[in-house]
Amino acid sequence: MTYCLAIRLNDGLVFMSDTRTNAGLDNISTYRKLHVFTPGPDRTFVLQSAGNLATTQEVLDRLAHDLQAPGTAESLATVTTMYEAALYVGRVSRIVVDAHRAGLMSSGADGTATFILGGQIGDAAADILLIYPEGNYIRASDDRPFLQIGESKYGKFMLDIAVRAHANLAVAAKIALASMMSTARANLSVGPPYDLAIYRNGSAHLDEFRITEDSVILERLRELWEKHIMAALHELPAVTDLDELVAGAPTHHSPGSS
Amino acid sequence: MTYCLAIRLNDGLVFMSDTRTNAGLDNISTYRKLHVFTPGPDRTFVLQSAGNLATTQEVLDRLAHDLQAPGTAESLATVTTMYEAALYVGRVSRIVVDAHRAGLMSSGADGTATFILGGQIGDAAADILLIYPEGNYIRASDDRPFLQIGESKYGKFMLDIAVRAHANLAVAAKIALASMMSTARANLSVGPPYDLAIYRNGSAHLDEFRITEDSVILERLRELWEKHIMAALHELPAVTDLDELVAGAPTHHSPGSS
Repeated sequence: MTYCLAIRLNDGLVFMSDTRTNAGLDNISTYRKLHVFTPGPDRTFVLQSAGNLATTQEVLDRLAHDLQAPGTAESLATVTTMYEAALYVGRVSRIVVDAHRAGLMSSGADGTATFILGGQIGDAAADILLIYPEGNYIRASDDRPFLQIGESKYGKFMLDIAVRAHANLAVAAKIALASMMSTARANLSVGPPYDLAIYRNGSAHLDEFRITEDSVILERLRELWEKHIMAALHELPAVTDLDELVAGAPTHHSPGSS
Repeated sequence: MTYCLAIRLNDGLVFMSDTRTNAGLDNISTYRKLHVFTPGPDRTFVLQSAGNLATTQEVLDRLAHDLQAPGTAESLATVTTMYEAALYVGRVSRIVVDAHRAGLMSSGADGTATFILGGQIGDAAADILLIYPEGNYIRASDDRPFLQIGESKYGKFMLDIAVRAHANLAVAAKIALASMMSTARANLSVGPPYDLAIYRNGSAHLDEFRITEDSVILERLRELWEKHIMAALHELPAVTDLDELVAGAPTHHSPGSS
């Protein structure tokens, strides 16, 4: 599996992806799942992928090929809005899967892929969109301005906290890392190194970072994490001491009752 | 869905279950999923259930019926070990599902249920076991002495922290609540009130509590949670400031590259 997330903030976008891929438990490898396209001075895209690795690689190859094609062929350089870009990627994704459908079906494999596309075109607002294998898309909502693909359950609580805390770009990058760490700890199919991209609205470029397993910041995050969670728990009154907090007094079951 | 968890500690056992049930999104109700049996002075059991509500109710009815049957019919009063108790519950569960298989299959419903059985018989060690719909079971391991059924992914990180922190019964009860809160926040199919049972090894009884949505302790936990997680994140150095922490310097993509 995979875990990729993207957060949309007032001042920019934060993207994070793991790099672990596996075909069965005995074939584990490391591949980038966060890809940057800057096909013109007025546009920056980040594409994150989850799902079949062959499909995502062919989609990336076709996107690059379309950018180099002469004439007016549709590409990330020709689309004029983020939603057009999402529909274009969705179409390419469907073309790739359709091309291999017969072969995939004969082996029972699911060749589909899901993407997050984020970025900005011209003066329009920066945005993040989730592209389904069916080729359609959803935007992140205003109330919960983040998207996740892959193993999204383990790290969701961190993103909820980020939203409530109105984090800025720097804090959101840490929240993304904490969400990733919570996921990788609980699920072997998600693992480091982690790719991080930070886009500041209106700027012409992205800052990209790779955080490795032995990085100082991951080690520090693990320590701070446990320290503060245990501090929160110790500050919390004991569940058992506070009879007024529970609906009734403790029930003592005497032998024989059931 | 459902979320139930059980933790085995040196000094006892902690159990927590939510109470939300749903048959479709428009039929949501509240049922206990944590049940206590004390069929003799030498034994205490807690049974937690996830899965088909009709199946779990019939299993509970049959367990109670077997306890009242005259003679030497197998029941929770006659089993001599925790693993025998688990196999017995597993057999009852399979009998119930088999009895309704034809009806369930015709509507395409999955009638199976999964259980956690915990407790102590005589002087043997207290234990927690997970009973599969197939009727077999697994014990919690020594390295990760907890079990989860239902929506287990969202709250797993909290239980991992509990293990590493060597929590005692009182702290483990708080950790169980934090794990439950993290799950209920992220997944609408899990919700309060929450049932908590605490068993101290060698004691003849359980303490049971019900934590409602408007309880002071849940409100306090939510506050402390966000406060300390944000404190941890603020203590963490900025990902972007620490170039030595990343594999390479930030990559600036110039227009035209991809």
